[in-house]
Amino acid sequence: MAIYAVKGELSRRLRRKFIMLVQKYKDMLSGKSVIRQLSEFATARGQEIGYENVFDYSLGNPSVPVPGEFTDVMLRMLETRETSELHGYSPSLGITGVREAVAASLEKRFGIPYRKEHIFMASGAAGALAHAFRLVTEPGDEILTFAPFFPEYHPYVDLTGAVLKIVPPDCGSFQINFEKFEEMLTQKVMAVLVNTPNNPSGVVYSGETLQRLGDILRKKSAEHGHTIYLISDEPYREIVFDGAEAPCVSRFYDNTIMCYSFSKSLSLPGERIGYVAVHPGCDGAEFMVPMCGQISRGIGHNCPPSIIQLAVAEVLDKTADISVYETNRDLIYNELTGLGFDCVKPGGTFYIFPKAPEEDAKAFCQKALKYDLVLVPGDTFGAPGFFRMAYCIDTEKVKRSLPAFGRLMEEEYKGRA
Amino acid sequence: MAIYAVKGELSRRLRRKFIMLVQKYKDMLSGKSVIRQLSEFATARGQEIGYENVFDYSLGNPSVPVPGEFTDVMLRMLETRETSELHGYSPSLGITGVREAVAASLEKRFGIPYRKEHIFMASGAAGALAHAFRLVTEPGDEILTFAPFFPEYHPYVDLTGAVLKIVPPDCGSFQINFEKFEEMLTQKVMAVLVNTPNNPSGVVYSGETLQRLGDILRKKSAEHGHTIYLISDEPYREIVFDGAEAPCVSRFYDNTIMCYSFSKSLSLPGERIGYVAVHPGCDGAEFMVPMCGQISRGIGHNCPPSIIQLAVAEVLDKTADISVYETNRDLIYNELTGLGFDCVKPGGTFYIFPKAPEEDAKAFCQKALKYDLVLVPGDTFGAPGFFRMAYCIDTEKVKRSLPAFGRLMEEEYKGRA
Repeated sequence: MAIYAVKGELSRRLRRKFIMLVQKYKDMLSGKSVIRQLSEFATARGQEIGYENVFDYSLGNPSVPVPGEFTDVMLRMLETRETSELHGYSPSLGITGVREAVAASLEKRFGIPYRKEHIFMASGAAGALAHAFRLVTEPGDEILTFAPFFPEYHPYVDLTGAVLKIVPPDCGSFQINFEKFEEMLTQKVMAVLVNTPNNPSGVVYSGETLQRLGDILRKKSAEHGHTIYLISDEPYREIVFDGAEAPCVSRFYDNTIMCYSFSKSLSLPGERIGYVAVHPGCDGAEFMVPMCGQISRGIGHNCPPSIIQLAVAEVLDKTADISVYETNRDLIYNELTGLGFDCVKPGGTFYIFPKAPEEDAKAFCQKALKYDLVLVPGDTFGAPGFFRMAYCIDTEKVKRSLPAFGRLMEEEYKGRA
Repeated sequence: MAIYAVKGELSRRLRRKFIMLVQKYKDMLSGKSVIRQLSEFATARGQEIGYENVFDYSLGNPSVPVPGEFTDVMLRMLETRETSELHGYSPSLGITGVREAVAASLEKRFGIPYRKEHIFMASGAAGALAHAFRLVTEPGDEILTFAPFFPEYHPYVDLTGAVLKIVPPDCGSFQINFEKFEEMLTQKVMAVLVNTPNNPSGVVYSGETLQRLGDILRKKSAEHGHTIYLISDEPYREIVFDGAEAPCVSRFYDNTIMCYSFSKSLSLPGERIGYVAVHPGCDGAEFMVPMCGQISRGIGHNCPPSIIQLAVAEVLDKTADISVYETNRDLIYNELTGLGFDCVKPGGTFYIFPKAPEEDAKAFCQKALKYDLVLVPGDTFGAPGFFRMAYCIDTEKVKRSLPAFGRLMEEEYKGRA
């Protein structure tokens, strides 16, 4: 046997080409995520003082249980159905009945005539976006998105060869900074990426914002002589507060590719289930979903897990008990504004994005750690001077954390924010 | 609302750029898979004469039930565990305990000191291969594989930008044609891809074949001044006949990246679960698994489904009742050789790859359709003149199909093969 045969001097020589080869992934390894570092700090600190005493607002990991209906469906299927039916290959575009159910649910809710031909089942929002980017861009094309934005968009886009450019934020409202947007919407832009309700701001784009966005995209598509597609990343669509509903992005612009995930609405982030819904009036609509199937072959997807596809199709209109996120939003928003923080009130998600009480949000978040408050500086999200809190944690813990904000402001900022 | 606003003349103009953009995926759409066409024929014919009367040997879809232990584990977990633990985010490299269990199982079985640091949980073999190709090649690099070969390797590799080249078969044994291999193993080759037990031939590479392959790769790596990696696609590893075990590829060459899937061994093809196992003595072993995590971000994987990871970790040493495949192999092999077919005896999988009784295997397979025998011409697999049968079907149906071969040979070939 030849285990460990080619080692030592020779191996070091061979290694050179290897190291050159994979430099792009090695470079990525060295750039450690700020969010992950903070989350690791929280875990380590938890081992010292008990995790219940660390107010960890770093990670957007859903905390409410999966709805009982989902678990019931899973149990019933495992007890009664043939294993070949449950665990067999899914067609590469998704299980036909599941695609039909998703299309019918979307048509009923948004009044857009989706059919199964417009639905591609994908491995969560990340999987859906991986297909959407490849559908409408080639290497070198530009995709615009709006700060503040989810920082994973960078690796998602960069590794396709397209170029992600960030439109600076409108810090007063966290709606769209249209002036900067129009400046940046050049001939090279093939797609615009929006995320509403938004991570990290918690803001829901208004109908007015989306109407204006659609109007600009129609005008510029005509001027540039090519379709500018709108890719709408909607994992937080169901988590909206004050009895409102988030305006449906696809209703304002035909050339919209909706990317949905059940991760947040059903608290299933580990099961990698979502879909691409191509607007039926989209340019090239008839090719889009079959092309997703071809893209899948190149990136090793095939399909999301069969049993999870079958189960979510039975609970499309259910959500986990997301009211806890609204309770948490109210507690935090009231406390922070009471302390003088400048803060746009979140309309949904489980994030809030206040202005730090000093210009350097990183310095502020560093000071907060002394009070066991784990907050993420806004620099990561393209909005320096702000910080993100992910309040998908127990309400009881949120309540216990509030006095720490008061002490932080009193002791570090003499009570002013 | 702006639904269907930009249509007609303008839209046709806009469409031009779109159509140019995605030509590579559109081209793929037009090249319809022969296997899929035959499978569609079988379905249509089944609607005419009853599917039980169509001898459909076209698709490699496991037919034996999932082992009861897997279903039991799924039920027990759903009944007793917290939903956040079952369905929460998996770390991007896979759930730690699952990676440890896989490493321990591989070490025990193959005597190679795998640790969790060498294991990356992936979405089936397709997901594992998507990572492996990107780990060790850049666009323009060559990957060699050996005919007969699984035709999906083409889109899997082509869409990374690397170039797949096919070493012609050794038609006498379906082991490796070493003479042609050494000719094609140029400076541009960065990886060699093997699949044993093999789809479509059913052949298991011998220890002698693998030793010679390893020796050549060591010699050529030194000559070329860079590591040539061996990517071993092993979804059929557990399906081996006559009480044998398939020689472990990784034992013959340190620079081996094993790609495994539970699709065939546990009959779970729809659940997209497998792994990459990097040989601990591999050049750059310490970077490989973390880099898989970075590659995942670019291709939208994240991780295989959490609950399925947890469940397979409990049944790593179980398989579905694969003895039925050996029974089918014996029935078919004996019948075909009795009729005079020239045929290498499969050592595993659920495929057999006999020589057609005329030079043009496509013409032969066309004639076979008259007898409701659905066989796949070898051209698709890089071995014209042969045909593949996937015998992952009921034994009872195999038995009923055998007389049709006799009639086919009698009526079309005057009894000679």
